[in-house]
Amino acid sequence: MNTAAIYHRPESEFAFLYKVDEVRIRIRTAIDDAAKVELIYADPYDFSEVMLSNGDSSGATPDWQFLTIEMQKVVTTESHDYYQVAVDLAHKRMDYLFVITGQEGEKVVLTDRGAMPYDIELLTKKYAAFRLPFFHEVDRFKAPDWVKDTVWYQIFPERFANGDKSLDPENVKAWDPTETPEREDFYGGDLQGVLDHLDHLAELGVNGIYFTPVFKAPTNHKYDTQDYLEIDPHFGDKALFKKLIDEAHARGIKVMIDAVFNHIGDESPQWQDVLKNQEKSKYADWFHINKFPASYVATDNNEFAVDATYETFAFTPHMPKLNTANPEVIDYLLHITTYWIKAFDIDAWRLDVADEIDHTFWKKFRKACDEVKKDFYILGEVWHSSQPWLVGDEFSAVMNYAYTGAIADSIVKGKTTLTQMVAALNTQLMLYRDQTNQVMFNVLDSHDTPRLLTECEEDKDLMKQVEAFTYLQPGVPCIYYGDEYAVTGGGDPACRKVMPWTAEHQDQEMFAFFKALVAFRKENSKLLSECTMDWCVVSDENGVIQLQRKLGEDVLIGTFNTGKKAVDGELKDLMLSNLATIDGKNVSIAPNGFAISKG
Amino acid sequence: MNTAAIYHRPESEFAFLYKVDEVRIRIRTAIDDAAKVELIYADPYDFSEVMLSNGDSSGATPDWQFLTIEMQKVVTTESHDYYQVAVDLAHKRMDYLFVITGQEGEKVVLTDRGAMPYDIELLTKKYAAFRLPFFHEVDRFKAPDWVKDTVWYQIFPERFANGDKSLDPENVKAWDPTETPEREDFYGGDLQGVLDHLDHLAELGVNGIYFTPVFKAPTNHKYDTQDYLEIDPHFGDKALFKKLIDEAHARGIKVMIDAVFNHIGDESPQWQDVLKNQEKSKYADWFHINKFPASYVATDNNEFAVDATYETFAFTPHMPKLNTANPEVIDYLLHITTYWIKAFDIDAWRLDVADEIDHTFWKKFRKACDEVKKDFYILGEVWHSSQPWLVGDEFSAVMNYAYTGAIADSIVKGKTTLTQMVAALNTQLMLYRDQTNQVMFNVLDSHDTPRLLTECEEDKDLMKQVEAFTYLQPGVPCIYYGDEYAVTGGGDPACRKVMPWTAEHQDQEMFAFFKALVAFRKENSKLLSECTMDWCVVSDENGVIQLQRKLGEDVLIGTFNTGKKAVDGELKDLMLSNLATIDGKNVSIAPNGFAISKG
Repeated sequence: MNTAAIYHRPESEFAFLYKVDEVRIRIRTAIDDAAKVELIYADPYDFSEVMLSNGDSSGATPDWQFLTIEMQKVVTTESHDYYQVAVDLAHKRMDYLFVITGQEGEKVVLTDRGAMPYDIELLTKKYAAFRLPFFHEVDRFKAPDWVKDTVWYQIFPERFANGDKSLDPENVKAWDPTETPEREDFYGGDLQGVLDHLDHLAELGVNGIYFTPVFKAPTNHKYDTQDYLEIDPHFGDKALFKKLIDEAHARGIKVMIDAVFNHIGDESPQWQDVLKNQEKSKYADWFHINKFPASYVATDNNEFAVDATYETFAFTPHMPKLNTANPEVIDYLLHITTYWIKAFDIDAWRLDVADEIDHTFWKKFRKACDEVKKDFYILGEVWHSSQPWLVGDEFSAVMNYAYTGAIADSIVKGKTTLTQMVAALNTQLMLYRDQTNQVMFNVLDSHDTPRLLTECEEDKDLMKQVEAFTYLQPGVPCIYYGDEYAVTGGGDPACRKVMPWTAEHQDQEMFAFFKALVAFRKENSKLLSECTMDWCVVSDENGVIQLQRKLGEDVLIGTFNTGKKAVDGELKDLMLSNLATIDGKNVSIAPNGFAISKG
Repeated sequence: MNTAAIYHRPESEFAFLYKVDEVRIRIRTAIDDAAKVELIYADPYDFSEVMLSNGDSSGATPDWQFLTIEMQKVVTTESHDYYQVAVDLAHKRMDYLFVITGQEGEKVVLTDRGAMPYDIELLTKKYAAFRLPFFHEVDRFKAPDWVKDTVWYQIFPERFANGDKSLDPENVKAWDPTETPEREDFYGGDLQGVLDHLDHLAELGVNGIYFTPVFKAPTNHKYDTQDYLEIDPHFGDKALFKKLIDEAHARGIKVMIDAVFNHIGDESPQWQDVLKNQEKSKYADWFHINKFPASYVATDNNEFAVDATYETFAFTPHMPKLNTANPEVIDYLLHITTYWIKAFDIDAWRLDVADEIDHTFWKKFRKACDEVKKDFYILGEVWHSSQPWLVGDEFSAVMNYAYTGAIADSIVKGKTTLTQMVAALNTQLMLYRDQTNQVMFNVLDSHDTPRLLTECEEDKDLMKQVEAFTYLQPGVPCIYYGDEYAVTGGGDPACRKVMPWTAEHQDQEMFAFFKALVAFRKENSKLLSECTMDWCVVSDENGVIQLQRKLGEDVLIGTFNTGKKAVDGELKDLMLSNLATIDGKNVSIAPNGFAISKG
């Protein structure tokens, strides 16, 4: 057996409290290496002497009254199989060992001190058992239930709708949805525009809005905050923002706003004071200034300066990094954090560049949010593996680019096979606790990436297929504004075109598709977030991938044709499809088509 | 190559900030599998296009200016090799990948999304790099420097010395060091007794006292606290305790006391109020009561009740478990925590049954301690692998039974070979950050285990050998009271005999040995805590084990003969030895002997 490949880590995504009284245990082995994996477990303090009941030895008398349960293989990646099992115990604590039986019948015991050749003594004497000392509800990773029922809609306010021309910036450009914007352009989008079109969102069916920053800032994207306590005057004011949130809530729509706490804009009064007074500024320790005077050598485009004497976001001198270990800065940011929750009743914060801020700060941030609003959702922008932020005392979820990226790499770009895609998705799922995967934020595109339709080379059927595939995954989907009208655009700034509000620029067929997809997702949200996921068919040869989501008696089956030829089969109770021809139970799915049915 | 065995985990003991500007990166491979392991890294935002400098491809133009550094194999366990490297970066952030070259020259790249066959594109395009987004000093695992210079001495106050007979409990037994105590016996040890013998400790050279509980409690061990804010009246009072601490500090001796916060004694006013008023008690939510009335079915010895309607420590109905998620309990315990630091200037808390209390509580506890005293040491009682408590925001260290247990299993009990012992020790070291290993609490025996000399079947040379071996390890040693006089005793209560204060029961030769060993350790504390450790000779055949500790030019070499025949060799500058015959540079070490020399 490949003993060196076996891995388990107590109190992590490999051993976690799923519900108040249910712990889930995972273990990793090399692929196709184990024939059987068993969990041996019991209360740590129950030393009752009983006869072994697992048949391994008829005569041995163990030191503890242990139970044996077979673990289920839940996913397979390129190199590994993962096994998992759910256990509950009366006294909320557990000692455990693993017995792994190989294909040839050989056995290994994984203990807290490493893997060892099977020896009944290891079990009966409970040698070096792993321990979950006590299952504490207060430590459990929890995320709000409402998120599982949510389909998000991302709005970049400067480009969504211009509802109040009196607020337009100077040199505002005409609202032309066919025009690709330049980096510095303004089009006059504002909060009144969002308010005016809330019914559009309600019709689409989305029930969560994620706003990129709305606070006062010089740029169109507003990631260079000037004042965290003011709505940008080109967007509106606080009264309007409150009205917008109330109107959204009245329609059952949650509101998430963007917190840019890693850095501040260089036009903020704090940074201006530093520039003026340097080491004598009362804000001198609000930043990471390595050498006074705080300065930088301008480059051609004035946007990139590796020689700044202070830490910045991504060498951008206009975005000086905040010192989030300074108690004054912490108080300042936490005041902002709770102010917008208390006064405006927002439902979630999205945290920009979240990974570059210290964990100590985020733990305080989480506590502050939890104290002022129940069931608050905290979404971190982290593009890489994110376990350190998802222990339970920091974020609820991260923007799941690593997951959706694996989908796009295969189905959209053809860079990987379906088999490789499934392995990559499974690898991502195994990085997190099950309840975390259920609320991950699955974005196929955003203001930071090219539009999905453009990535699909404007193949609308392919786009629909990828969207439907993603809506069937664990985690919650998000529509980037305009995708529902088939808006195109490459990377920033091309992905930030203005929203088309004139009929000739709106793809009504795509809108109808999204409307149906959102409705389907919401109707099946419990199933799609909490159920098991099985890959039934993964055929690189003909490009067919079929997955099943199952919760008790409820089953959903999705079949996707990523190949070149039509695929025929049988499906009952078709629920949603594209490019699929139905004839009774028989279905024929054309390339780029899909069909979702009840099992 | 055994790709499935490769493991790395960002922001863990595999990737940690060691000093303010130095990050250490670790990776695990299957044993003897890799010929070379390289770290590929750079600033995440430095996209300067430069030519590849690592010779892999002469023409490729990378998307980032990456550096390549070869990692060093630091330890080997039964199944794995571990490689490590130290890196510092100007802007405190880092993207990185690993290139692992196998024995046949085949190459694998470990990315944040799994292991992949080597492809220059993975490197030049920085595909799925791991990221340390920003090195935050505030998040770094830190432990007080003074701990590295400390040799601890554990005192069980009821058995150390009787300094004030007026405080003796009723039915106190005569102070007879030859008598094996019964579980419920009292001998009258007290704080005046400790004060009277501080000069004994000073002469021995120890500079830290670890007291098992001193708070008011009915039993002799006092783990069933009745009042956390009173010194047990049989031990003395607060004035005496303060005097004792001041006198210890005057001798350069730190003081650590025992916090039993997992449970409280059933004679405490809080539990008594629950028994009286049940669900109407104001303390009803201070505990984990599953069903009222809080009660249990007594067993024969009245010490074990699996049917208690409330959670207890280890089914002991006299020790009801505290609900440390209740804000009132948190306030109560944190008041106790800071009270003894502020009013008595203690230097450390030892936390009983620390693993069964929630992490949320411990983070608050850590913060409370740090706020009232700089360089405070927090030692958790955890017998199993302890990564979740050693991230930096909970404990400084744990009682390192898993480490010292591996030493005893081999050298004392002969249950494992020297090779297996080294593998087990290396496995333990790789569970923690380097700075954590430096302050781990290495106990060979305690009030919870048999005495070391008894485990050694009263072979004093073997005991000396094991002690010397342990003093050469990373982590800090602790002498269990009486070991310095060769006191014997099996498991609890036999290991809790009274301290011999009469010459005929004191082994002066053992005392002299410990005095020399402590002096040696203190003189070389920086070297022994911070330096590298190399196993130079590990011979299962003749029982010789030799290790080298090295820091710059300073080298210490320890040679131990665990075999049956004398071992001859050369050593210069002998520093400490037992059963070793020296003739110039030549040394002959008898079985159970050892020699420590300068390199």
